[in-house]
Amino acid sequence: MCQNGYNMAILLNNMGYGNAPWHQMLSELLPDDRIVLPDDDFSPTDIEFALVWDHPHGDLVRYPNLQAIMLLGAGTEHIDQEVSLPMVPIVRLVDPAVVMDMARYALYWVLHFQRQFDVYSQQERAAHWERHDATMPKHFPVTVLGLGQIGGKVAQHIALSGFCVKGWDAEPKQIEGVCSLAGAERLEEALAHAEIVVNCLPLNPSTHHLLDDNTLGFLPNGARVVSISRGAVIDETALVDALDSDRLSAAVLDAHQTEPLPSSSPLWQHPKVTVTPHISGATLASSAAKVVVENINRTRKGELPQPLHLPPCHKNHVATKTLSGRESVIPLDNRDG
Amino acid sequence: MCQNGYNMAILLNNMGYGNAPWHQMLSELLPDDRIVLPDDDFSPTDIEFALVWDHPHGDLVRYPNLQAIMLLGAGTEHIDQEVSLPMVPIVRLVDPAVVMDMARYALYWVLHFQRQFDVYSQQERAAHWERHDATMPKHFPVTVLGLGQIGGKVAQHIALSGFCVKGWDAEPKQIEGVCSLAGAERLEEALAHAEIVVNCLPLNPSTHHLLDDNTLGFLPNGARVVSISRGAVIDETALVDALDSDRLSAAVLDAHQTEPLPSSSPLWQHPKVTVTPHISGATLASSAAKVVVENINRTRKGELPQPLHLPPCHKNHVATKTLSGRESVIPLDNRDG
Repeated sequence: MCQNGYNMAILLNNMGYGNAPWHQMLSELLPDDRIVLPDDDFSPTDIEFALVWDHPHGDLVRYPNLQAIMLLGAGTEHIDQEVSLPMVPIVRLVDPAVVMDMARYALYWVLHFQRQFDVYSQQERAAHWERHDATMPKHFPVTVLGLGQIGGKVAQHIALSGFCVKGWDAEPKQIEGVCSLAGAERLEEALAHAEIVVNCLPLNPSTHHLLDDNTLGFLPNGARVVSISRGAVIDETALVDALDSDRLSAAVLDAHQTEPLPSSSPLWQHPKVTVTPHISGATLASSAAKVVVENINRTRKGELPQPLHLPPCHKNHVATKTLSGRESVIPLDNRDG
Repeated sequence: MCQNGYNMAILLNNMGYGNAPWHQMLSELLPDDRIVLPDDDFSPTDIEFALVWDHPHGDLVRYPNLQAIMLLGAGTEHIDQEVSLPMVPIVRLVDPAVVMDMARYALYWVLHFQRQFDVYSQQERAAHWERHDATMPKHFPVTVLGLGQIGGKVAQHIALSGFCVKGWDAEPKQIEGVCSLAGAERLEEALAHAEIVVNCLPLNPSTHHLLDDNTLGFLPNGARVVSISRGAVIDETALVDALDSDRLSAAVLDAHQTEPLPSSSPLWQHPKVTVTPHISGATLASSAAKVVVENINRTRKGELPQPLHLPPCHKNHVATKTLSGRESVIPLDNRDG
């Protein structure tokens, strides 16, 4: 670290999303620190923290003095594919401002369908004045899949607007105002009466295509799907089949298996599908850098950064509970909270 | 009243909106009461309460035993045109469920413009993937005009979702989380930085065409207008001029000077105007009848129903403070709260 006389540095690599705003914010918030980009001139021994997104696989083991790997987004699919990682804390980026953006995005679409704005838009084109009774929010069931730091807040925000919200997660979670169900055996119950299901699940082997022909069939006829986490949680072919056969009435897809969604994708023009370009919760350095810097400061004080993530290649080693030579204990229940 | 042996009755006339659901709900909630419609067989001396909407002018003075006039909606334009009314409390219908519906309607359109869903919808038609930075809600100013029981809640609900909300009313009002300005001389200040202005003003001589060519000019270039109270608060010609000359970028009109909006109205097809058929807050008897019955019960106990309204033809008489022979005092500051 600079403060102890060494020429330590923070490696920044926000692959594909631009380093400039991050570099500027980090320089402002940590004026005594050296921020380096992958192509800058530095020694591997200089790197104290790696702030990365979609960083080249195999690179992170090269830094012997690394204290923590801080992801510049909430997703972990890329880092989960690393065969080997240094035994340091891996930290997801959960910026409360981004989480609230995602919650508002989901609420917008819940209101859209509950208030039948799609129907009024059609009527408008025909200059046709007709009122339809809207189901009251408390009688309009919404189910949120995934109750982690993002899904939990999404569920709570929709419930705060008066909607009847069920939540489902692989593990039991308690969310105020939300009826929470846990485990694969209760997924059918979670989906059975949903007017809208909001996908907030992380992508991992157990959630890949979790919403397939079988589980989409748990939804009542006419239900809608809103997806804001990862596209591959949903089997796209099964989704389009369900829409085309009128079992589902609409889908709003902000997350896609391939991003950017190719212009050749039939989803763009599907009359029952709304596509947005992964904007439900955009990470802005102006806000998110504060969260990352707080985690850097916590780590330097010997505290644990939050939220921790346990990648598959760490799972055999977690029992050692000794990270980067310090006696830091990472409680398992603190991971991916 | 039934309970004191007389054959008293409640007159119900929900002109144009259907009496059947109200009749059913009132019969359930007041099983010992007689509910009559205008064409039913009853004597004018039977009528204890008049539950009315757009009731024929001049009729309400015919009921000597009337205890209160309860409107079946929040608006008062129709009753304000009465030349003479009995000296009984006039009560507006403010159903918290309807107010929350209006708040959610306004929030939906605030989110729509803040998140640029109009832009993403255009991109989708072109199969074009492009992200745009959204202004954070705390930097996205919304101004709510009218801070009564409806506008106050609308302002508060939008503020609770993280937006920077200013409120304006003719009279000073305190709304938690909302910066409130009062009086004609501060309207320009209230509008000066608004990305969106939400019209929640009641219609009366002082608000008629309050938003005209001059006051719409107080808004910054590119602002949007959302109108959910009464159409005639806005000078429609001035609004269309401002849209056509690109001074304003969009208008969402749920309230219209003439309803239903004639199919010949150019508003229907205007590319910058969204028309909805006065659905922002639909009164449902299932919820609203409880509010009315609570006011009936309050009146029978000698308490004041809420919220009271002071129609122009009462203004000369309010000093008497004696209503229908009882010593009920209606504090002026309780009226139209």
